[in-house]
Amino acid sequence: MSASESIAGGREQRVLQIIQTARAKRPRFRDERITLAHGAGGKATQTLIDGLLVPALCEPGSALAALGDAGALTIDGHRLAMTTDSFVVKPLRFPGGSIGSLAVNGTVNDLAVSGARPLALSVSLILEEGLESDVLRAEVEAIALAARSAGVEIVAGDTKVVERGAADGMYITTAGIGAIDPRADCSSGAITAGDRVLLSGPIGEHGTAIMLARNLFELDARIESDTRSLWPAVDALLDAAGAELHCMRDATRGGVASVLNELARAAGVGVTVVETAVPVAPTVAAAAELLGIDPMYLANEGRLVAFVAPDAAERALAALRSVAGCEEAALIGEVTPETPGMVLVQTGFGGRRVMDQLVGDPLPRIC
Amino acid sequence: MSASESIAGGREQRVLQIIQTARAKRPRFRDERITLAHGAGGKATQTLIDGLLVPALCEPGSALAALGDAGALTIDGHRLAMTTDSFVVKPLRFPGGSIGSLAVNGTVNDLAVSGARPLALSVSLILEEGLESDVLRAEVEAIALAARSAGVEIVAGDTKVVERGAADGMYITTAGIGAIDPRADCSSGAITAGDRVLLSGPIGEHGTAIMLARNLFELDARIESDTRSLWPAVDALLDAAGAELHCMRDATRGGVASVLNELARAAGVGVTVVETAVPVAPTVAAAAELLGIDPMYLANEGRLVAFVAPDAAERALAALRSVAGCEEAALIGEVTPETPGMVLVQTGFGGRRVMDQLVGDPLPRIC
Repeated sequence: MSASESIAGGREQRVLQIIQTARAKRPRFRDERITLAHGAGGKATQTLIDGLLVPALCEPGSALAALGDAGALTIDGHRLAMTTDSFVVKPLRFPGGSIGSLAVNGTVNDLAVSGARPLALSVSLILEEGLESDVLRAEVEAIALAARSAGVEIVAGDTKVVERGAADGMYITTAGIGAIDPRADCSSGAITAGDRVLLSGPIGEHGTAIMLARNLFELDARIESDTRSLWPAVDALLDAAGAELHCMRDATRGGVASVLNELARAAGVGVTVVETAVPVAPTVAAAAELLGIDPMYLANEGRLVAFVAPDAAERALAALRSVAGCEEAALIGEVTPETPGMVLVQTGFGGRRVMDQLVGDPLPRIC
Repeated sequence: MSASESIAGGREQRVLQIIQTARAKRPRFRDERITLAHGAGGKATQTLIDGLLVPALCEPGSALAALGDAGALTIDGHRLAMTTDSFVVKPLRFPGGSIGSLAVNGTVNDLAVSGARPLALSVSLILEEGLESDVLRAEVEAIALAARSAGVEIVAGDTKVVERGAADGMYITTAGIGAIDPRADCSSGAITAGDRVLLSGPIGEHGTAIMLARNLFELDARIESDTRSLWPAVDALLDAAGAELHCMRDATRGGVASVLNELARAAGVGVTVVETAVPVAPTVAAAAELLGIDPMYLANEGRLVAFVAPDAAERALAALRSVAGCEEAALIGEVTPETPGMVLVQTGFGGRRVMDQLVGDPLPRIC
């Protein structure tokens, strides 16, 4: 289901105001039970985080309260970033990657988009009794390969086994630490009206690869997950834009739409996206249409959005395009002082619509 | 099943030699499927780690290859430790603790016994669709409370949801980083013949509390898990013994027997334990007897063993006993140059037997 909402004609401004007012309230977590939507990266996830996890786990002003993709901590004057992600993707292997490579790249990328050079990872496995050893071996090798490619060392590990039926093959949790790059001064708070929004490449390939691997529809296309380390892209952006690179985020669960919504809220700004500027492969667009999902909500595992000051945007984009895998990077929109907390899409037909947070979970266990 | 093996009379020396020779070989992982034993912390876990995980994931000489409870890394001259653990304990709550407190203390303790002051944790949740929100809320609060007690900040988090039946309620993975204490110079390699072995308190309480919570037997006793932060104990030991504190390890899965075996092998030394010196609560001893498990193999979540140079042993023991929760700390054995890689128990009857690694998994999902 697309969470976008069409707004036409003179009602637009009033409706926008109503939505803004509703959003200003602090979310409360009232659900009686956990549903798949709580893990989808959209509205329900945000309510769980803001309404339950952050109030309980965070001292006010703490690193976690900042809610970036990684927490920051300073040890003896050195600024480090730490992050974690669990991976429960189904199936374990898919075109272009597997749970092992995803588990490394996902955590590496959360560090990278926080402006931190990834240094070390921990890997914890939850295995289901009866899992074939060859399946485990393949994933351990995928982890090793992805770590080598990303230039990170694996420094700690753990393995637990649960009874048959108490997990689905294997789950992997990685945590990572990185050194915050001295060139980096990124946070959602730095996003400013006028900033340009860059996207590092075509969207929706990971989500589509998973759908194809699950045989969810007939499509004669080979689409590969975009899972990769984003550090080279971040490194290039930092070189080109330095402190004018205001914020980065990787667009994973919930896609580009969810990450832009999160940042618009966090920064209290509006974001306008030019739909025709967003690169989408024809096969991805076709798959998304078949399933009735807006590609903007499809998961990516190697794509980032970057907010850059206007005068640095061109050189940042050029730098991004020089990085392998980011040749199709594009300028897709900009930050506006109007409609704070909202993302608007300028359609190919000249209209505007709200691109809201993801509601529900169209495709569980995408990562 | 006890993995111990009785050896009597003149055969002893010859049998010991045969076992030693068998152990010198590098283990190979040949099992076709993963079994619960691979998660039990005993022989099968060790074979999985040494035969599959370490060869694939470790560069020779890397932090992980050292195989302590935490990996060490140096960032700009600062020595940090990083560790991770997944928690799949069943049931989620038990006398004295719950999966949430366990997930914090387990990782805090892996840092502590590596001589690192715990600083920051990440917490990643895998939730089963349908989990009651109140159950989640209680665990999030348990995490917060345990983190505050241990003096660590939670700096990063993640939540995934899997379909009903694809997990058992909730699993928690924590990772932690700590600053290696300048007083600490601990590693399995530092263990030396003559070292005294200290134990920080009575054993088997966590394992027994879990068994009682599962109603595995009728016993009219209230036994509480020993889950707690071990940093105060480590801090006291470092103060008292400094560089004469050669190695520490927390005795979790597989109990004191497994951790002593691991260290005996890693250090290439023998360890002799005086059975009557090991503190065991009468209720724990009774429960262990009912189930036919040697208490030395029962899991603990707030107990450590420490190897200390002989002339520092008395003051280290006194320091340990001054710490809340460690009043019953004891000197339980010593390191010998004979029988390298083996742990021998001197029984109350004056005999000796091999206390081998745990085989199989008498009690799955203990942590």
